[in-house]
Amino acid sequence: MDISSLAPDVRHFLGQAAYCELGEFEALARAVATAPNLAVKEGLSAAAGRALSKHHGLITEIRRRGHEPATEMAPFVVNLDEFRRKTSGADWHELLLSCYLAGGLLDDFFIRLSDGLPRDIGPRVAQLLGEDSGTDVLVHELQTAIETDRALGSRLALWGRRLVGDTLLVARSAMPATDLSSDERADSAAGADAAAAAGASAEARIEPVFTELIAAHTRRMDGLGLTA
Amino acid sequence: MDISSLAPDVRHFLGQAAYCELGEFEALARAVATAPNLAVKEGLSAAAGRALSKHHGLITEIRRRGHEPATEMAPFVVNLDEFRRKTSGADWHELLLSCYLAGGLLDDFFIRLSDGLPRDIGPRVAQLLGEDSGTDVLVHELQTAIETDRALGSRLALWGRRLVGDTLLVARSAMPATDLSSDERADSAAGADAAAAAGASAEARIEPVFTELIAAHTRRMDGLGLTA
Repeated sequence: MDISSLAPDVRHFLGQAAYCELGEFEALARAVATAPNLAVKEGLSAAAGRALSKHHGLITEIRRRGHEPATEMAPFVVNLDEFRRKTSGADWHELLLSCYLAGGLLDDFFIRLSDGLPRDIGPRVAQLLGEDSGTDVLVHELQTAIETDRALGSRLALWGRRLVGDTLLVARSAMPATDLSSDERADSAAGADAAAAAGASAEARIEPVFTELIAAHTRRMDGLGLTA
Repeated sequence: MDISSLAPDVRHFLGQAAYCELGEFEALARAVATAPNLAVKEGLSAAAGRALSKHHGLITEIRRRGHEPATEMAPFVVNLDEFRRKTSGADWHELLLSCYLAGGLLDDFFIRLSDGLPRDIGPRVAQLLGEDSGTDVLVHELQTAIETDRALGSRLALWGRRLVGDTLLVARSAMPATDLSSDERADSAAGADAAAAAGASAEARIEPVFTELIAAHTRRMDGLGLTA
C-alpha cells in the first residue's frame, strides 16, 4: 500500500471542508443574531463574512472541477450537523468559544491536510483557509468576560476541554486513513494485512499532525486565560 | 424652507441603510439555517453573503468618514428590530418572501434616496446597493412552492400584502421629511406655517417615489404568481 493513500481525495476534501466552513458560518451568524450589543454584533458579522467567504471559495473550487456543490457536501451533513449541534453551547459565551476554538482547529487541520492535495489546488486552498478569520472580536469578548466572571471562566475552561475532543473526532473522521477500515478491505487475508500495515503507517504519520493541532488549541485557550 | 432639506443627511442615511442590510443578512442567515435541503441552503448562503457585503460596504463608508459604525447604527435599532420581528413570518416560506420583498423594496428605496447624497458618495452607494442580491434562489423556491400548493399561495399573497405596508412604513420613517414634524417645529406660528409648507412640498416629492416602489413590489409579486 502506497503511503500516498494518505493524501486526501480532492472531491472528498473540498466537499467536507466546504460544509465545515458553512457550519462555522451558521454558528457565527447565530452569535451575530444574539450579540449583546451593536459593536460586538458588527464585529461578529465580519467574522461570519470571513467564514462565508472561505466557504464560497471552496464552492468555487468544486464548480471549477465540474461538480455540484450540494452533491459534494451531502456525505458530510449528518456527521457535521451532529458536531455543530453538540458544540452549540448552553449560552452565547459557549457558542462564541465553540466558534473560536473549533473554527481555529478545523482551519488548521484542513490547511495541514491540503499539503497532500495536487499542486494545482493545494496551495490555493491553504491560502484561502489561512486568511484572517476576523476572530479578534471573539477573543476580546471572551477575555473580558472571563476576567470579570471567574465562575464563567471555570465553565468555559471545561467547555473548551470538551470541545477539543469533539473537534478532534471530526478531524480524525476526515482523515483519508479512515478509509482503510477492516470492514471494507479485509475480504482477503492479504488485503487485511496490507490494510493493517497501511493503517499503522497512517497512524504514525497522523500522530504529529494531531500533536500540532492540540498545541495550537492550547495556545488559544492560554490566550483567553483558560487552562487547557 | 429650502427643498434641499429633502436630501438625506449622509450620517443618518449610512447608519440606517447599514443596519437595514445587517437585518436583511440576519433574516437570510436564518433562512440558511432552516433550509429544507443542501442545494437551497447553498444558494441562500450566497444571498446572505450579498446582503452582508452591502452592509460591510456601507460600514466602510461610515469609517471612511471617521465615524464609529455602532454609534451610527444605534438610533435605528429599535425601529428596525421591531420591523424584522414583525416580518419574520410564521414559517420558512413566509421568511423567504419577507427577505425577497422587503429586501428588494428597501434596496430600491435607499438607491432612490441616495440621489440626494453628495456626489462623492451617492453614486458609489447606489452602485453598491444595486449589486445583484443573489435572490434568484428565493424566487425559484417561492415559485415552485406556490405552483404546487394553492393554499400556500393564498397565504403568501396575504403575507406579501401585509409586508408591503410594514416595509413602506419603515421607508417612510427614513425619509428626511419626517424631521419636519409639527411637534418639533411648531413652537412659533411662523415655524408651524413654514413646516406645514415644507411638509406639503416634501409629500409632493415623496409621492412619486413611493408609487415607483409599489410598482416594483407589484412586479415582484406578479413574478411569483401572487396577486399584489
